[in-house]
Amino acid sequence: MDYPNDQAPGAPVRSGIPEHGRIPKYYAVKARLSVLVEELGEGNLIPTERDLAERFEVARETVRQAVRELVLEGRLRRQGRGTVVAGPKLEQPLSLASYTEGVRRQGRTPGRTLVSLDRFPAPDALAAETGLVRGELVWHLERVLLADDERVGLESTYVAVSRVPRLDADFEPDSSFYAYLNAQGITFGDADERIETVLATPREALLIGTPPALPMLLIHRVSRDTEGQPLERVRSLYRGDRFSFSAHLNG
Amino acid sequence: MDYPNDQAPGAPVRSGIPEHGRIPKYYAVKARLSVLVEELGEGNLIPTERDLAERFEVARETVRQAVRELVLEGRLRRQGRGTVVAGPKLEQPLSLASYTEGVRRQGRTPGRTLVSLDRFPAPDALAAETGLVRGELVWHLERVLLADDERVGLESTYVAVSRVPRLDADFEPDSSFYAYLNAQGITFGDADERIETVLATPREALLIGTPPALPMLLIHRVSRDTEGQPLERVRSLYRGDRFSFSAHLNG
Repeated sequence: MDYPNDQAPGAPVRSGIPEHGRIPKYYAVKARLSVLVEELGEGNLIPTERDLAERFEVARETVRQAVRELVLEGRLRRQGRGTVVAGPKLEQPLSLASYTEGVRRQGRTPGRTLVSLDRFPAPDALAAETGLVRGELVWHLERVLLADDERVGLESTYVAVSRVPRLDADFEPDSSFYAYLNAQGITFGDADERIETVLATPREALLIGTPPALPMLLIHRVSRDTEGQPLERVRSLYRGDRFSFSAHLNG
Repeated sequence: MDYPNDQAPGAPVRSGIPEHGRIPKYYAVKARLSVLVEELGEGNLIPTERDLAERFEVARETVRQAVRELVLEGRLRRQGRGTVVAGPKLEQPLSLASYTEGVRRQGRTPGRTLVSLDRFPAPDALAAETGLVRGELVWHLERVLLADDERVGLESTYVAVSRVPRLDADFEPDSSFYAYLNAQGITFGDADERIETVLATPREALLIGTPPALPMLLIHRVSRDTEGQPLERVRSLYRGDRFSFSAHLNG
């Protein structure tokens, strides 16, 4: 046996330490700090950088790098001037259900704040994905996604103006767009999604309130109505330190 | 209109530049370099750091940071002593189908190299996920995943020894484990998957040959056979700069 018998099956093999045992000093600190994080439990403050540097007998810069990685991975989070143990990632289903539904199912309160709603003539790629021809008008609805008042993502929805001509007049930006579509008699049929990891841009980091270059999960969605007609193109960006996505697969 | 009419719908709004227009210097270089990358096209060398620093009138360290982010995102890749424009990310379906099938569908040649195959008494969490009781024997099969001889991921498969007692004797580590299970008369019924982004550990970076702390896509899978009995627990790590995952969703 070259790894502990009681290691969680989702954790890296050998805690990420190579067989030759040589690792950067900051990673040794990160591994020891991980154990401390487990012991402390959610919501508790970790010791200061200075205290950790003394305890682990390393430079403060070394501690800083270890803490930075644990923050990027969502194991720790900044709180005021301190750093506390973070809760588990939210687990959002990959499904036709809305963001609202997914967050509610986890006992959190979903919310959204409007960044902008505007309309413009659709370029080629977008026209195809929203069932238009080039130059027809398309809405762009951009909103920050919230869970319990915490900013967790940023969503751009593109939909043909001809589908929902009164979007700017009678849609409440804090509510579910899918519920709005349903109220207009439009029902989702199916969708294609693609998920990848990207770094937050400065604009995105500012809007979501994340450190710049935080790894994010980006979901591209193209959906169709029950007649198979193109309906919307969505670009949803979620904090990689706060979200995971799940799917149930059948044979 | 505050963003270009012909922007790709999957790209960040305003190319990631905040409304106030203030961005770090390296990001301005990254945005200009992105345009150059588009023009050059896959496989072509970008100018040297020194040339880019002169062209953009910035310090070499600023160019280095912009290039580093484009490498982490998979837009550029190191090749020998230079840096070239990378191809698009591989798009792997989230489905019960194997890694082998997914890679083949994209016209690439899948492969695997064995890291280790060993057996040990299952701890609680793993026992539950593989249909065992604590202490019964479980296999751990760890392999590096290849696409066209390029190392792209690392996979840990845990399966009860009682299911496939001769795994160490008659399984060819370079072949598909799913094909092997099929040959033993074991068929997949369904699976739960969860996808998240994590940073590569030093061991993983070494095995896959990535820069340390590269954002990765980690997929956890727990699958069952057609009788609904637990079958395997898989931890698959894919290079975030080389992979995206897609799903088709029905209502």
